[in-house]
Amino acid sequence: MLSKNQVRELRALQRKKERQARQRFVVEGAKAVLELLQSGWPVAALYATEDFIRQHAGLLSGCAVAPVPCSAETLTSVSSMASNRDVLALAVLPEPSLAPLPAAGQWVMLLDGLNDPGNLGTLIRIADWYGISRILCSPDTVELYNPKVIAASMGSFLRVPVHYQPLGDWLDTVPADIPVLGAFLDGEPVHGLPGLSGGVLLLGSEAHGIGEALHGKVSRRITIPAYGAAESLNVGVAAAVICDNLRRVQT
Amino acid sequence: MLSKNQVRELRALQRKKERQARQRFVVEGAKAVLELLQSGWPVAALYATEDFIRQHAGLLSGCAVAPVPCSAETLTSVSSMASNRDVLALAVLPEPSLAPLPAAGQWVMLLDGLNDPGNLGTLIRIADWYGISRILCSPDTVELYNPKVIAASMGSFLRVPVHYQPLGDWLDTVPADIPVLGAFLDGEPVHGLPGLSGGVLLLGSEAHGIGEALHGKVSRRITIPAYGAAESLNVGVAAAVICDNLRRVQT
Repeated sequence: MLSKNQVRELRALQRKKERQARQRFVVEGAKAVLELLQSGWPVAALYATEDFIRQHAGLLSGCAVAPVPCSAETLTSVSSMASNRDVLALAVLPEPSLAPLPAAGQWVMLLDGLNDPGNLGTLIRIADWYGISRILCSPDTVELYNPKVIAASMGSFLRVPVHYQPLGDWLDTVPADIPVLGAFLDGEPVHGLPGLSGGVLLLGSEAHGIGEALHGKVSRRITIPAYGAAESLNVGVAAAVICDNLRRVQT
Repeated sequence: MLSKNQVRELRALQRKKERQARQRFVVEGAKAVLELLQSGWPVAALYATEDFIRQHAGLLSGCAVAPVPCSAETLTSVSSMASNRDVLALAVLPEPSLAPLPAAGQWVMLLDGLNDPGNLGTLIRIADWYGISRILCSPDTVELYNPKVIAASMGSFLRVPVHYQPLGDWLDTVPADIPVLGAFLDGEPVHGLPGLSGGVLLLGSEAHGIGEALHGKVSRRITIPAYGAAESLNVGVAAAVICDNLRRVQT
């Protein structure tokens, strides 16, 4: 059973302010929590159904915290998922860190002003698929520890570091020999890109694109060729197509 | 003002059974409704704010139905959107039709058992971007006229015909010289595909993949190369990457 205080804490953590104050965030669902535990990420509490505890006794016995058994109904009632019959973890919020410059052969993804949590989660998953080293978000981008971001990332937030800091200042430190690609509707087609050994990929929000203050910091404007009548692609979809083209020709 | 009956009808149309019985579906938001009106799709009713009616008087005067003015609060209350300050249209459900075989140079996308409405909408938008001629869904795929599908398609449902019929029977009629590509995790990499002039692209649901009964009908198993640790990509993201590769080398 969960105490009233535990229920209150879990519900409060739906809000960014409370996550910051309590230095905790919620990870939900069997797959994401199992990956969390295997990754060694610090966990402050675990709430799980008896079934889940029985099934994963081995892994759970190695954890620093013992799981609190509770019913699927209770779990669902404090969950942001439509239904949770397995497990919910209270994970420790890490210290924010600044993004280093990309090392040789590495790609860094920059996101300017994304506000949809599902899109950010999808982008983290895509970065993980394409081996992008890290993601750097403008400070006004939706917060990584929003439960919808964590859920949409499908565990990939454990592998792809995500930083928040002003993009312009960071781009000013990028040496001139590292290419900074920006996705626009009028750039050079990604199908004809030369092989690059790594660099920076800058993406804007669907509604506002890349902020004007950053335009001058882009060394290559790129675009995805269209063959039909849709006006645009979702930012996650666009990121994947661009990463696929970058990786295809990478030297 | 909307009458109680009108409010009841709009709310009822959130359900597939009611859409089928009344032969109506809802299109919401300024952009989608403007495209709907411009496309000449039959519309049974229009509900709009005074502001919207004033702004689009020209286009609205050419419509067969006069817009019913109502407040943004009323529109939002019958909407599946978080907020609707513009317009909502009651569109006429078209007669279902069977998908023809792809003509020379055309691509047809087949979807097996997708149940997420956002994913189907995104796939329609991607098909529209990449000039895919039509989409053919297995009968258990989420319904096209679900408000979330229509919203996620961003108007592309007006340009890409979507059919529902058993995929196996349809694939049996495809001549042997038309390639049937199926997305699997263990196929040939899409980066090395030869130029094809058109064909069929079969995608399964994220949870279950392509149904086993269809495996034997696939002539080329294809896969998206991975460079990191994510186990999979979202089906919309995967479709876009595959279409981009097909179009890049298309003869």
